[in-house]
Amino acid sequence: MIRLAIDAMGGDQGPQVVIPGISYARKICKDVFFLIYGNPNVLEPLIAQHLGGFKDYKLIATEQIIPNDMLPSVALRKRDSSMRLAVEAVKSGEAEAVVSSGNTGAYMAISKVLLRTLPGIDRPAIAKTLPTLNGASLMLDLGANVDCAPMQLVQFALMGQIYAQKVFKIACPSVALLNIGAENQKGNSVIQAANQMIRETACLIDYHGYIEGDEIFTGRNNVIVTDGFTGNVALKTAEGTYKVIQSTLKEQLMASWMGRLGGLLCMPAMRRVKQRFDPSVSNGAPLLGLNGIAVKSHGSADTIGFAYAIKVAVEMVQARIHAHLGAGLTHHMAALTQLSANNGTNPVLTKQEA
Amino acid sequence: MIRLAIDAMGGDQGPQVVIPGISYARKICKDVFFLIYGNPNVLEPLIAQHLGGFKDYKLIATEQIIPNDMLPSVALRKRDSSMRLAVEAVKSGEAEAVVSSGNTGAYMAISKVLLRTLPGIDRPAIAKTLPTLNGASLMLDLGANVDCAPMQLVQFALMGQIYAQKVFKIACPSVALLNIGAENQKGNSVIQAANQMIRETACLIDYHGYIEGDEIFTGRNNVIVTDGFTGNVALKTAEGTYKVIQSTLKEQLMASWMGRLGGLLCMPAMRRVKQRFDPSVSNGAPLLGLNGIAVKSHGSADTIGFAYAIKVAVEMVQARIHAHLGAGLTHHMAALTQLSANNGTNPVLTKQEA
Repeated sequence: MIRLAIDAMGGDQGPQVVIPGISYARKICKDVFFLIYGNPNVLEPLIAQHLGGFKDYKLIATEQIIPNDMLPSVALRKRDSSMRLAVEAVKSGEAEAVVSSGNTGAYMAISKVLLRTLPGIDRPAIAKTLPTLNGASLMLDLGANVDCAPMQLVQFALMGQIYAQKVFKIACPSVALLNIGAENQKGNSVIQAANQMIRETACLIDYHGYIEGDEIFTGRNNVIVTDGFTGNVALKTAEGTYKVIQSTLKEQLMASWMGRLGGLLCMPAMRRVKQRFDPSVSNGAPLLGLNGIAVKSHGSADTIGFAYAIKVAVEMVQARIHAHLGAGLTHHMAALTQLSANNGTNPVLTKQEA
Repeated sequence: MIRLAIDAMGGDQGPQVVIPGISYARKICKDVFFLIYGNPNVLEPLIAQHLGGFKDYKLIATEQIIPNDMLPSVALRKRDSSMRLAVEAVKSGEAEAVVSSGNTGAYMAISKVLLRTLPGIDRPAIAKTLPTLNGASLMLDLGANVDCAPMQLVQFALMGQIYAQKVFKIACPSVALLNIGAENQKGNSVIQAANQMIRETACLIDYHGYIEGDEIFTGRNNVIVTDGFTGNVALKTAEGTYKVIQSTLKEQLMASWMGRLGGLLCMPAMRRVKQRFDPSVSNGAPLLGLNGIAVKSHGSADTIGFAYAIKVAVEMVQARIHAHLGAGLTHHMAALTQLSANNGTNPVLTKQEA
């Protein structure tokens, strides 16, 4: 039985999505016990409606809620929030993972303070499994680290490699660095230094080198490493492109009877395309680098989306991912620290998000 | 009669695309005279085949070719290349604009050395008109400036505003900064400083503030400003997303007879979607900030794509864009320099691509 802590008060629609999301998660995940944190007055009717009759949950009453616009520094002081208490359940060992749709900055800050980072990791990264032409790829960071030092990119690459090995079950995952060209002299000094460190330490099993933005979704690489600024822009640009194409196609199909008829016949194929690229199914972003498992569900995720974020947490627990991350990082950090010492550079991060 | 200098030897397929591209451009642009620079042995048969019978061109024999992988510093020393001589035609006033599909770094370097930058501009930006849901938007920089100082982003914003006014004919263009969130504290220090400078100097008519990646293609903003690294990744990610959706849809439609029939009926609508987002039609990237008009055609552009790059150059000449850019920048640079002096910061760029 896997025990998951659920922050039931986060997300744009809060418990309205979270509780039916837990109900849906029962269909796609087996043997999970849910510790549900939130306001009982709001939760009890929803639980009665969606989860009633089962014995696989426990409601833990909390009073405070962390709104989406609250600064992380303020959120950290709310000691009785549903988010904080759910994260604390992982710290105390009561739960094996936590899932929240709440304020990303607050969730990152609370998780970092309570769970602490793994040895060699200064700040966790937000990762995500992307739908691609050919299987799945993990991309990180997607927004936690606006400015990255070269060593951070190397850490992301190592964590991504271990995640792909243990969760995707790929023995030799291909890892690539996102850049603006394939040649060695392309990009900025941070990327070039990270590229050189990876090559010199040979810390990756199958390092592909640089890829460009149009190669993210081909599936050629299992892990795509970038700083949080570029990763966030790239992911949202892809989402925007999908939406624009979808709505333009719909508009053009509706403009004629032939298009409307054709659209009807194409519906099953289009639905399969949608399923493949549906943000719901790829929802659930692991915060990688913590001494514990925390998954972020998108604030606007629907019921099915929240269930898939739960699935990500379950898969991470089953893969014992953070034990593997800890061991893998410890193994490689010695070589990386040595390299940094030889080069006279500090392996610890030099530039951080404010 | 607009006189254009054409580098006929650039691009993945060189003259095989350029010469028929000139022929196609006749259909979409009126009153253009082409000065065609390149190797006569290669060009003469193509010209006879595609341009024969007209009097709207002149072949200027050149000997050297700049390959795609040549370093800009080496390319600069090739004094008889088709690319350099075509740019020189703009410098001497023989041509009003130049178009090349050749090596981007070399083209940028040669244009910068020969044409020089406009007052207040340290380095030109690569811009591009994007297809959006609702009209066209200009995005810059797309790769010329990997690291940008805040003042550079402000310069890009000003140039974009003037371009949208004069070329798109929009009186009050909406200008936005690409970031990873809408709130003031989002992003890195460079973007935050640029945002503040734009607000304090009120140098833009309709400044929208920050947008995220998923808002690039909505058409809400006429100008989208970003550094060359982020812009390049975003644009290529969008291209990759389009390709992946297109090929997945095709695969799914071909999987059943209903899909194949439906696909047939949807063909006209799909063709219109393709036309809207077709890279050929949006080909032609102005190098903005030069004391002269230079347009870059994508190295892999086809005949129609090259013709559209010619069209971009023609529209820029017709709009007298670089005179307007010069005047507009001079007007605003005083205020910006003053602001920088007050803040004790140097308005001139601090960080540059190596």
